[in-house]
Formats: sequence, structure tokens, C-alpha cells
Amino acid sequence: MNRVRLRVAYLGGAYHGWQIQPTVPTVQGEITRALSTLLRREVRTWGASRTDAGVHALDQCCAFDDPGDRTTGEILRAVNRMTPLDIRVLAVEATDATFHPRHSARGKRYRYTLSTGFGMHPFDLGRAWHVPRDLDVDAMNAAAAYLVGEHDFTSFRARGCQADGPVRELFGITVRHADWDRVEVEVVGSAFLKYMVRNIVGTLVDVGRGYRPPSWVAEALAAKDRSAAGQTAPPEGLVLEKIFYPSHPWAT
Amino acid sequence: MNRVRLRVAYLGGAYHGWQIQPTVPTVQGEITRALSTLLRREVRTWGASRTDAGVHALDQCCAFDDPGDRTTGEILRAVNRMTPLDIRVLAVEATDATFHPRHSARGKRYRYTLSTGFGMHPFDLGRAWHVPRDLDVDAMNAAAAYLVGEHDFTSFRARGCQADGPVRELFGITVRHADWDRVEVEVVGSAFLKYMVRNIVGTLVDVGRGYRPPSWVAEALAAKDRSAAGQTAPPEGLVLEKIFYPSHPWAT
Repeated sequence: MNRVRLRVAYLGGAYHGWQIQPTVPTVQGEITRALSTLLRREVRTWGASRTDAGVHALDQCCAFDDPGDRTTGEILRAVNRMTPLDIRVLAVEATDATFHPRHSARGKRYRYTLSTGFGMHPFDLGRAWHVPRDLDVDAMNAAAAYLVGEHDFTSFRARGCQADGPVRELFGITVRHADWDRVEVEVVGSAFLKYMVRNIVGTLVDVGRGYRPPSWVAEALAAKDRSAAGQTAPPEGLVLEKIFYPSHPWAT
Repeated sequence: MNRVRLRVAYLGGAYHGWQIQPTVPTVQGEITRALSTLLRREVRTWGASRTDAGVHALDQCCAFDDPGDRTTGEILRAVNRMTPLDIRVLAVEATDATFHPRHSARGKRYRYTLSTGFGMHPFDLGRAWHVPRDLDVDAMNAAAAYLVGEHDFTSFRARGCQADGPVRELFGITVRHADWDRVEVEVVGSAFLKYMVRNIVGTLVDVGRGYRPPSWVAEALAAKDRSAAGQTAPPEGLVLEKIFYPSHPWAT
């Protein structure tokens, strides 16, 4: 039995998120079906991040156990032949049974793209949230600074979140202007609650628009109450960029 | 009568190119129809670059004459309300009757994206040419150097090209690796013949694959014969990035 890990990129617009579900198309479902066809048996897969419906990924991690001795090249080609074009396995690597995509992860980086011009830039269609305002990036960075560190993120957690507890550590948040009238929010942390990045971005946008001062984010965090923070940003602006496995020999 | 210029971005996949045609959707056709609705009369528009069917643009330039006194903001909002989401007017600027998008242009920059991984990267779907090979970027740059300068580009000109003559000046070509297993080709020149950038890229790819040495491109150029050069790269990898108007007061 050989544990194998896949690095996967996808556009999430056509899928009900990463996690496999019985009746609707999901990214994990498509990959699991392709692997099951290749191995001629029911395959179980583990993913690193349960990205929401409509969220994209540049480097999701997925693992499974191969009872045979297929080469990584065979697996790469076979899965890519059997999955839709908006899902691509970028690399296949042999690993060992101690590796688990979620448990072995030491951190994740997400990027959220805001399109701030009068019209949504066509190159950002389906890949950004259209917020046609000048956003105050300095105020957004000042607000974001209150969230960095280990905190109880109850105020930024979806009501349906099934995680054990609300405490997570954020390593850093950076808000910056980019080409095409974009503002990008990069969020790096240990692990994330359901909708946490989208709730943080929705809250920072209220600050960027000038509706609220940066200190409001500190108050919202302290309130430990979802209704104290801002709206949930839509999924299409969010990309899972990178998962960090620093302590594992298969780290990249 | 006030001459007005529009800066336009579009994804070209749904259109039969820039130039207006009576029976098929084109980018100029959509913009002209929106302007005609706004002005309640038949409007004539001039574009800077006749991008081919399927080619994208980040900063196309289009001008028309407004017999009224609409503000640039009114025109921007109205045209964006009446055009599909894959066409966006990014800016509207007042200019004068001496300005013509094509005649006033002093140069253009195009970018061609090659996706060189085993599978096409999903983020590049519809925006790159999938060439699943390691490309020798140094060889491609060496080959491209032969094309820089003023030359007779008959070998890189589509057979149906209606331009007056085959002589054009290329200011520079740069080939480089980029994220996501991409190779990008940036081409800057005074003006371009039909399919010229796509024929150059198709030829450079033959060099990058190792099918031909860089010096073959010098021979192909000297032959002044379309069949001496390589294939035409597909349109979806090409983006019109910038038009230069250095000598005009409305230059950006």
C-alpha cells in the first residue's frame, strides 16, 4: 500500500466545493471517481482544505492509498484524462502513511481579489468580487492587524461551522493594490474556520469603504458574536494558493 | 462635435474579433451599438487594433464623435450598462479631432501565453496555448532577436492580409518563464500585419521545442515566403496589452 499525494488546481465555479457529496458535483468527487476508475475499486481520498462552493485553488493537496505499484506519471496522466478541464492535477508525488493532507499541514495561504473599477474587469469575471469603490487600503491593513495572532474567531465563523473550537492563529494579512483596479487580500494562517477568510474580507471591505473605522474590527473580534462583524464576501474572489508542510519530508 | 476616446478591455472568446461585421458578434459591433443607442443615431467608431477572432485585449483604444455634450462619466456608465460583461470600458477621455486610434498610435505591446505543463492549467483555460513540452527559452530569445528591427515580414503575414506593405518595425521580443508552468512572449512593435504576432509565436515554439535552431528564424525572415516560417499560434493565447500614443497630448 503506497500513499500518494496529488497537487491539484481548479476553478471552483462549476462545483459545490471541494468535499465529496452524494448528489452534486464536487472537486473531490471528480478526482475520487477518476482514481476509482483507474484502480478498479472504490478509492478513499483525503483533502487538505474543504474549499466552499465556487472557491478556486492553485495548490490543493489530496492523498490516497494505492494498493498497486503505479508510477506517479501513470497516475498523473490517467486522472487528468478522466477529469474535466477546470480541474488539473499538477503533480503526483509518492509519500508515506504518516502523511495526511489536513493533519500534516502547518499553514495555508489564501488570496482574495476585489475588482474596484466602475465595471468589473473582464479578465476577473468569476475570479473576483466587484466592489466599485475606492478602497482605503491603509485603513484595511490597520484593521487587519487586529486579527493577526491567536484568537477566538467566533465572530468570523459561519453559523454552520463544525470545527471543534473557534481558536485559530493568523500569521499575517496583507492588503494591497494590484493591476486592473484590483485590491488583493492575502491571508496566511495555521488553519481556518468555515467562511473565515470570506467573513474577514467582507469585514475589511466595510472598513475600506469608510463605513467603519479600523478599530471596529478589534471590537468585532472581542464580541465573539458573528453578528458583530461584517458580511460574508462571495466565494468567486477566493483562491486557496498554498498549503505549507514545513515539518514533513515531502514538504515543498 | 467632441471626439471621445474609450479604453476597452475584453475577453475575445465569444467574438469574431474586434472589427464590426454585419452578421456576427464583434467587440466593435457591441460598443458601436451601445453608443448608437445612447446617442439615438448611427455612430461610427474607429479602433486602434483589429484583433482577430478569439484574441483578448487589456487596453484597446476606440474613438467616436459625440455631437452632444455628454460627460465622460455618462458615456462610461451607459456603454457598460449596454455591453456584455466580457467587454468593459475602463475609461472614457475627451480628446480632439486630430486624434485617431490607429493613425496616432506609435506602437503596440502584445503578450502571448503558452501553458507548458502536462495538463493545461485551469486558470489559463481560454487564455493560453497548451504546449505540453519543456521549451528552451534561451533558444527562443536567440531566435526572436533576428526579428527585432525594421524588416519585410512577408514570411509572418497571413495570406489574406490587406495592409499596404509588408515592412514593419519590431522594437523588442522577450520570452520568459512565468508562474504555473507558463512561458510568456512579449512583442512590442510599431504596427503589425495580420496574424503577425501569432505567426511569430508559432515559429518560436518550433525553436523552443528543438525542432529548429534559432538561425532558422533568420532564414525564414529572409525568404519573404509565408511557407518558410512556422505555424500560426491559436488566438486564445494572445492579449493586446497596450497601445502607445507618445506624441499625443492624450497619451498615457
